Amino acid sequence: MPQPKLGLITPNELALFLDYYELTSAKTDFDYDNHAVVTQEYFVRRLPFGSYLVATGLEQVIAFIMNLRFEEKDLGWLEATSGPDFRNGFLDYLMNFKFSGDIHAVPEGTIVFPNEPIINVTGPTIEVQILETYLLNVMNFQSLVATKTARMVDIADQRTIVDFGARRAHGRDAAILAARAAYLAGATGTSLVLAGKKWGIPYIGTMPHAFIMNRPTELEAFREYSKSFPHNTILLVDTYDSLEGVRNAIIIGKELRDQGYRLQGIRLDSGDLVPLSFEARKILDKAGFEDVKIFVSSDLDEYRIEEMIREKAPIDGFGVGTRLVTGANFNPITREGGVSALPGVYKLVERIGKDGHAIPKTKLSADKILVPYRKQINRLLDDDSLFNRDVISRWDEPIADAEPILIPIIEQGRLTYNFPTLKESRAYCTQQINRLPKPYRLLSDSPIYPVKLSPKLEQASASLHSE
Amino acid sequence: MPQPKLGLITPNELALFLDYYELTSAKTDFDYDNHAVVTQEYFVRRLPFGSYLVATGLEQVIAFIMNLRFEEKDLGWLEATSGPDFRNGFLDYLMNFKFSGDIHAVPEGTIVFPNEPIINVTGPTIEVQILETYLLNVMNFQSLVATKTARMVDIADQRTIVDFGARRAHGRDAAILAARAAYLAGATGTSLVLAGKKWGIPYIGTMPHAFIMNRPTELEAFREYSKSFPHNTILLVDTYDSLEGVRNAIIIGKELRDQGYRLQGIRLDSGDLVPLSFEARKILDKAGFEDVKIFVSSDLDEYRIEEMIREKAPIDGFGVGTRLVTGANFNPITREGGVSALPGVYKLVERIGKDGHAIPKTKLSADKILVPYRKQINRLLDDDSLFNRDVISRWDEPIADAEPILIPIIEQGRLTYNFPTLKESRAYCTQQINRLPKPYRLLSDSPIYPVKLSPKLEQASASLHSE
Repeated sequence: MPQPKLGLITPNELALFLDYYELTSAKTDFDYDNHAVVTQEYFVRRLPFGSYLVATGLEQVIAFIMNLRFEEKDLGWLEATSGPDFRNGFLDYLMNFKFSGDIHAVPEGTIVFPNEPIINVTGPTIEVQILETYLLNVMNFQSLVATKTARMVDIADQRTIVDFGARRAHGRDAAILAARAAYLAGATGTSLVLAGKKWGIPYIGTMPHAFIMNRPTELEAFREYSKSFPHNTILLVDTYDSLEGVRNAIIIGKELRDQGYRLQGIRLDSGDLVPLSFEARKILDKAGFEDVKIFVSSDLDEYRIEEMIREKAPIDGFGVGTRLVTGANFNPITREGGVSALPGVYKLVERIGKDGHAIPKTKLSADKILVPYRKQINRLLDDDSLFNRDVISRWDEPIADAEPILIPIIEQGRLTYNFPTLKESRAYCTQQINRLPKPYRLLSDSPIYPVKLSPKLEQASASLHSE
Repeated sequence: MPQPKLGLITPNELALFLDYYELTSAKTDFDYDNHAVVTQEYFVRRLPFGSYLVATGLEQVIAFIMNLRFEEKDLGWLEATSGPDFRNGFLDYLMNFKFSGDIHAVPEGTIVFPNEPIINVTGPTIEVQILETYLLNVMNFQSLVATKTARMVDIADQRTIVDFGARRAHGRDAAILAARAAYLAGATGTSLVLAGKKWGIPYIGTMPHAFIMNRPTELEAFREYSKSFPHNTILLVDTYDSLEGVRNAIIIGKELRDQGYRLQGIRLDSGDLVPLSFEARKILDKAGFEDVKIFVSSDLDEYRIEEMIREKAPIDGFGVGTRLVTGANFNPITREGGVSALPGVYKLVERIGKDGHAIPKTKLSADKILVPYRKQINRLLDDDSLFNRDVISRWDEPIADAEPILIPIIEQGRLTYNFPTLKESRAYCTQQINRLPKPYRLLSDSPIYPVKLSPKLEQASASLHSE
């Protein structure tokens, strides 16, 4: 009997993580000996929410590029299945494929804005083009989740945000990557143990409703749990009646206290969370449990969290599942949005001609306009070191008093960037958010952060469009 | 210098793909010697769209369960990081963990409805509970994508639907699993080569815009491509001006014809697709290229496809990206929806008491009602073998003239189900959709398919709620 397939991706087959059209165009480039040096850039035209984006995912992109090799057996499979037009010459080329170009990018956790180049890839045409699908997949998803989480963390103002979303994430990898992106953007931890192990981030949990339903009474369930986890008892109080649950939690709190331990918290997972949290706080305080924390969960997002905080609900932490791991962009106030994806693209902007000069590349069809040339983001700060405005320039064009924020990652095929730890990226991301002036951090109706083109790019853009 | 991490999941660490609360409750069950036999069921209360769900993902769930082992080094890590409450006894138990229970489920591609048990897991408490996160992750995502795709395939009525979504999928695994689920639900293929390899499904592609921009003219780009792929030339015509692109495609079509080949098709990827397709068809036909197919892509979903077909646009196939792989549920007509996730749950419904009798389990809090007991779906057909109605019964309760659709998959820890090939599941799914009467297949405002409780369940439900 054939065994059922897990279908997990292994690193050695990852070179095939590309859309077929990248192979067909690569093969044509190969046939016509087209190895001109080009630059493609990753950027996002429109954000699903808010004014800013937290660029995230670079480590998984670079790990892919450094390991990118086509296995002989995979090429054999390709030859056997792709029809008569794939010739051996091209497959031999793929056999020896290795990225030899340059990559410049903003570090993970950097705040960027629409139309800014987040990653520049420069090198021979085939090598640059072939990275597209993987780069977009990883950057679009992690940046979406990091941005979504940053908004929650920002609005939660020191209260904790925990990723609870593994069960609603889009597959196994999405659960792991979402936990990583969320932690980088300031979440306290994740419910998913494997994400904890993979990224060294705190994993957190209480108990399932089934655990309580599986015992004669809620109180007995709480008691058994508190005896098994005296150092870390957080009780889920909403299985039957939430306030009755709080009273049962107090009984356990007293028992723990008698044994020299401490009830850590309670969790509300259904019902009207704001009034319930006020009631729960009152009952706990009256019983002398002022230090017992209240955690809530149940279809939360940044809008719901903002509302609860505006109503001054005595809540210490939020468990966020679906809307965090999917980066859901439905705005319940405006009833707009609805597609949980970041529409980042990877476009050709420059080709080096035979004479060594840069030829601008752009696409003029319909409504999709593209600024040509390999570019740099230059960030200008105000007197308090807050972000004031950005100027997008040509790669070699200096902008006075500005910091260029795309830095070298891979140079001539060699990794020259020392990746920070995830914790370091997390601290950097927090700092970035804090340097963004408050108005740009509003959940809705935030102003557009000023991003201008440099004089050279203005000129290039204008002359192309007047052609 | 530490190497950047890909972060792909390996099969041997997959046992840690669980929310921490499953481990804390398992540890408490272990401490209290609670190994009562229970049943938990996977079901969906509300669908994000339409009246039906295509149950998909069972193969990856069962592969996980059959391979579920905790590695010694992972348990060591758990002991080191989880605080003082994890004792060795429990970790020893995990070391020898193996699923010993029973699983009944509907085959992949089966049409099911809200509140119907899609998977029943029966066994000792810990073994049943510990599967929750993984089972939900895989079933929720694949069923969402399969259902979304089935709606597109159904409305496209013989025109092809191809998955183009890898770049917007939520991570690497999501791209692979979405391609699988889409193919199972009737898609023709995928753009993602690795998905083609993993599941043996057709992979398809044309050329990127960058390929065309990278050459002096569109015509030269088309010509080079057609010489490299004479057996399979589909030309992307919208880089500069779509109708000019069609005229260039005709020039290439004539050249191919002169060499004994045939232009396969053109692809429109921007602009107003319906009028463009009419114009393109006219130009092609007038030039004697009636057999050249027209493919379109650009932010499509089932609603847009329905609209194009209603306007009789001469389109032969649709490439669908973001809204397929994310299962986006925003309805552009009603402006409702917005969270791209299937809210399936896995709930305790029954426990076997010491006397061997089944004890009903339910949760009565707030608005989340649960029908207790291990259950079966019984499907009644009308005279044409179309689905007429379902009766949910207790597991051992016979329903006259109905077919029980949950079948044995794992019995006492042993795999007893012979998984069909993906192609077989695809044929089965098509058949299932065709057996669902047309009104239930409307994209919006479809009636609710009749699902009733059996007399025994009605009684059980009523007596619990009157307690």
